[in-house]
Parts: sequence; C-alpha cells; structure tokens
Amino acid sequence: MTSTAPLNRRLDPDARRRQLLEAGFQMIQTRPFSQVTADEVARAVGVSKGLVFHYFPTNRDLQVAVVRAAAAELLSRLNVDPDLPPEQRLGAGLEAFVSFIETQPANYLAVARSVGSDPALMEVFEETRAAVVDLILSAIGMEGGPPGLRIVVRGWIAMVEESVLHWLEGMPVPRDQLLGFLQRAAATMLPDALVTFAR
Amino acid sequence: MTSTAPLNRRLDPDARRRQLLEAGFQMIQTRPFSQVTADEVARAVGVSKGLVFHYFPTNRDLQVAVVRAAAAELLSRLNVDPDLPPEQRLGAGLEAFVSFIETQPANYLAVARSVGSDPALMEVFEETRAAVVDLILSAIGMEGGPPGLRIVVRGWIAMVEESVLHWLEGMPVPRDQLLGFLQRAAATMLPDALVTFAR
Repeated sequence: MTSTAPLNRRLDPDARRRQLLEAGFQMIQTRPFSQVTADEVARAVGVSKGLVFHYFPTNRDLQVAVVRAAAAELLSRLNVDPDLPPEQRLGAGLEAFVSFIETQPANYLAVARSVGSDPALMEVFEETRAAVVDLILSAIGMEGGPPGLRIVVRGWIAMVEESVLHWLEGMPVPRDQLLGFLQRAAATMLPDALVTFAR
Repeated sequence: MTSTAPLNRRLDPDARRRQLLEAGFQMIQTRPFSQVTADEVARAVGVSKGLVFHYFPTNRDLQVAVVRAAAAELLSRLNVDPDLPPEQRLGAGLEAFVSFIETQPANYLAVARSVGSDPALMEVFEETRAAVVDLILSAIGMEGGPPGLRIVVRGWIAMVEESVLHWLEGMPVPRDQLLGFLQRAAATMLPDALVTFAR
C-alpha cells in the first residue's frame, strides 16, 4: 500500500491494535459507534482494510472493541483521587462522567439505547455499569453495602445519564446548576437508601 | 386456510389489526419485541401469515406496531385518577409504571436498551417518554414548568426504570421499600428542581 508509511509497518501487534482502537475512539467523538468501519479506520491510520480485519474480523468486532476501549477510558477518568473526602470524590467523579458524555453525545446515546441489540455490547455495558457502581460505593466508603444501595446507585447513574443526554439537546439550564442538582440528589438519596435498605 | 375459523374471516380491518396487535402484545409479556414474528402472530390468531403481512409488511413493522401498542397501554395505565391529590397521584402512577415493567421485564429491557438501533422505535420511545413527563408534570400541577424541571423528571423516570429492572434480577429488597424510596426521591428532588431551575 503506497499510503502506508514505513513507521506504520514496524508496529508490533499490541501497538497496532491500540493504534486502530485509538482511531476508532476518535471517530466516536463525533458519531455513534455503529458508524465506525474497518474501511475508515484503515484510511485514518494509513493501513490496508485487510490489516484492520486481521485484528477485528468484522466491523461489528471492531465496533465492540471501540466501545470496550471507550468504557475503559470512562472508568479510568472516573477513578479520581482516592484521597479526596467522599463528597468531593463523588463531585469530581460526576464532573468526569458528565464531561465524558459531553465529548461523545451521539455515541453515548447510541450505546445507552442500542447495546441491547447485541449480546457482546450488552456485556460491555453491564460490566461497565457494575464497575461504575463499585467506584461510587468505594468513593463513599460503602463497598459491600446492602444490595438495595447498589440498586439505588445504579438508578442515580441512569438519572445522571438521562438528564445530561436530555440537557445536551439545547442546554436550557446552566451546566453547574444541573450538576449541583444531581450531586444534591445523590447526597439525599444515598443516606436514605442506607437507612431504607439496611440489612 | 383450514385453520381460519369463520368468525376470524368476518373481522373488519380495524378489528383485525387490533386482534393481531393484541396477539403481539401477549407475546411481549414473556419475550422481547424483537422475537415477535408474523409467523407466530398468524398461528396465535389462526390466520395466514400473508394476512399478517397485509397489515404489517415486515416483521419489523409488526414489532414497531406492537411496541407502539404497548406504549399506549402504559400511558393509559399511568393516567390515574386526576382527582387524587398530587402525592397520591404520583404514588399511584409509580405503582402502575412498576407493575407494567414487572409484567414484561424482558421486553421492557429490550425496549430501553435497543430502540436506538431503529429510528422508528426510537421515535416511539421518545414520544412515550415525553408523554410520561407530561403526565407527571400534570400530576404535580406543574404543566409548563421550567425546562430544568422537565430534565429532572426525565431523570427520575430513568432512575425508576433502571432501579426496577435491576431489582427484578433477584428482588433483593422488598418491593414496597423500593417503591417508597423512589417516591421519596421524587418528593425531595422535584421541589429542589423547582427552586434550582426557576426561570
């Protein structure tokens, strides 16, 4: 391929895989994962489509891997300074979560509303959501809290997600008001959940 | 068709369409909408598959119509006695919403997590969610409230949905505790939202 720069040919398999995923991750900043194709990733990186298919046998495999990479990126951003006090840690995590949605709204909406059509995507979604719940429980010092608390934390995450996605359609209220509201909601609900669902 | 009973042949088009949708609605009590097929609806009702395709040209058309019928059913159940005071009306609506999810958990999860893969389904979902928001705002006497309140109500609906779907996996806490918690969350958040997002 004349479009393949010499440097591109020397990457080891892990580095190549990361490079392809990075290109896919860039694409979902502006469109849903379902519009990521081997063709475009190949063009973006300057390699042959065949090489992309060597790493990801189908477009769907590539898309699932990109969604998985995005989920890993989200979890890494949510894992804020563990030395912060619980309330600030929750606030910093909320800020990181909302920023993440803001950088890829079309893709985030697509993930939230279409993973159910593919078992592999649904698995990534469920694993990620469970990991976000763990991070939040850890932030508030409640690892291993009662099952009812886990349910409520999942509910709060869904509320944040839905509110932010809906808010992004026109941003009718200031961002800091929305985030302040969502954090107060957590600060009210979590203690209530602890009392309500105490084992 | 020998399987077509005489009565079945005399239905007018509207009644026939309703009958086919009713059969599809029965099916989604036990499985996701994506598993409703013209073949099975035809068998359930005792008509030819060709007749079902006459009303719904593709399986996907049939599935979208079934999801639309389910959404209409949900809205009708949520529209509880308007003479109740706001808090009781919200409580009765919450009870109706949760019961609805409980009667068709696999389908509800499929709708919530896969409508994004089909524009027609996404449209039904968005219309329904907007209508549920309107019902809630009307129940609490806040039609035409500030846009921030609309966002928060959507967020609360997403929280209810996610909590209940997660709770259904094993029901680790009593149902009435979960519903009580969700109603208190609304009772705390809605006044906060009104103050936060007052125009």
